[in-house]
Amino acid sequence: MWCQSCREEYGEVDAGTCKECYEEASETEEELKREIDDLKSKVAFLRLSPPSLDLNPSSSSSSSSSPSAPDLLLLASSHAPSSAPAVPAHRAVLISRSPVFRAMLESEMEESRSGMIRISDVSYDVLRAFVNYLYTAEILLDEQMACDLLVLAEKYQVKYLKAFCEKFMTSKVNNENAIINYAFAHRHNAKQLLDAALSLIMDNMSTLVERNEYKQLVENDPRLVVEIYEAYLKKQVNIALKI
Amino acid sequence: MWCQSCREEYGEVDAGTCKECYEEASETEEELKREIDDLKSKVAFLRLSPPSLDLNPSSSSSSSSSPSAPDLLLLASSHAPSSAPAVPAHRAVLISRSPVFRAMLESEMEESRSGMIRISDVSYDVLRAFVNYLYTAEILLDEQMACDLLVLAEKYQVKYLKAFCEKFMTSKVNNENAIINYAFAHRHNAKQLLDAALSLIMDNMSTLVERNEYKQLVENDPRLVVEIYEAYLKKQVNIALKI
Repeated sequence: MWCQSCREEYGEVDAGTCKECYEEASETEEELKREIDDLKSKVAFLRLSPPSLDLNPSSSSSSSSSPSAPDLLLLASSHAPSSAPAVPAHRAVLISRSPVFRAMLESEMEESRSGMIRISDVSYDVLRAFVNYLYTAEILLDEQMACDLLVLAEKYQVKYLKAFCEKFMTSKVNNENAIINYAFAHRHNAKQLLDAALSLIMDNMSTLVERNEYKQLVENDPRLVVEIYEAYLKKQVNIALKI
Repeated sequence: MWCQSCREEYGEVDAGTCKECYEEASETEEELKREIDDLKSKVAFLRLSPPSLDLNPSSSSSSSSSPSAPDLLLLASSHAPSSAPAVPAHRAVLISRSPVFRAMLESEMEESRSGMIRISDVSYDVLRAFVNYLYTAEILLDEQMACDLLVLAEKYQVKYLKAFCEKFMTSKVNNENAIINYAFAHRHNAKQLLDAALSLIMDNMSTLVERNEYKQLVENDPRLVVEIYEAYLKKQVNIALKI
């Protein structure tokens, strides 16, 4: 018999599908690829252009001369206003992406009146990437950026971005960073990352107590260390029950 | 041999794939489905909530009291202002979706100054669906709506919506509406719809001249009728060459 896909000969034990099913599967694959193309076009259509940084937000009185200008400024509070520029944005976009911004901007809070939002504990670069993401759903992550953006996404309840960063961080968990990621995931309710890190930690219990990150964790947050041991114990019990 | 997909027995001539290729194809299908899920989440994230219709756009001076209120009104000109409400929208959204709105609103044109855009030859329902689509990329089409929206999408150069309507209309072309769709496609540069309609017309040349739509087309736009005959002639010549 000849495989229609790889064109190589195969015997009875290596049979995959019949011709009919092979053809159906090929059609399904084509359909799925078409759906992907359609969705990609839709994403491209829905993306908004983030405001360019040299634009100043229009004040109420000058809105007709610069009609689509952003009506908000976001300021990274770890920088003095003079050292890094503010990041301009549109209220309508922030409101539609984050329930926290919605509550802030649809109320009579200071931020809404002044059109200026100070974001604490964040660098200008991270804030800029964050606002850019709210417009485009696009970002090039590295581990530090994923970590910083996850914190910001959690704070402003941008679930989709948080999940995206968590997925990226989960893919980067290794023996070296498992304990740090475990503590981080705990602080920021990142279940997927927590499970991945915990699983790696449990695979390397024999060297656990020698690690510096472990000693720091015992110092700073011993309850998290207890949880590691509890999870390990539960796993041991389960293995024992199966034997 | 047993097909791993449908679990039925098959003989040598009906062989599809080997086991290895079957497993690879299954993995590919899973990956494509995951990609589709990811893209669907991204679309959901990027969608904006269209402004509710009971909101009035904030005037420049009152923007702080209703900060995310739309700053534009669109008016279907086939209705008097009193008979149908205006459709509110945000300049930033219209500008990012349509180069025509961009040119209109980033200039000193009357529409930009007044914050009011009159859209001619369109019903309130179609205008509302159009604006809604610019925010969400979502719509439930029927044939009339697809036709009306295609015209509007062409006028404002919203390519993605035009392609979407054209695809829908192409899927609905039949012997009954082929001539009307052919003329419509010609007027609005809808190549895919034009080809589908023309192909159906050429399959039914024997009854063409008896049809009312044909007689009307000869009356109103004889050049389009000439094009049908030219395409038909070309097809006949090609068939003759192949024999």
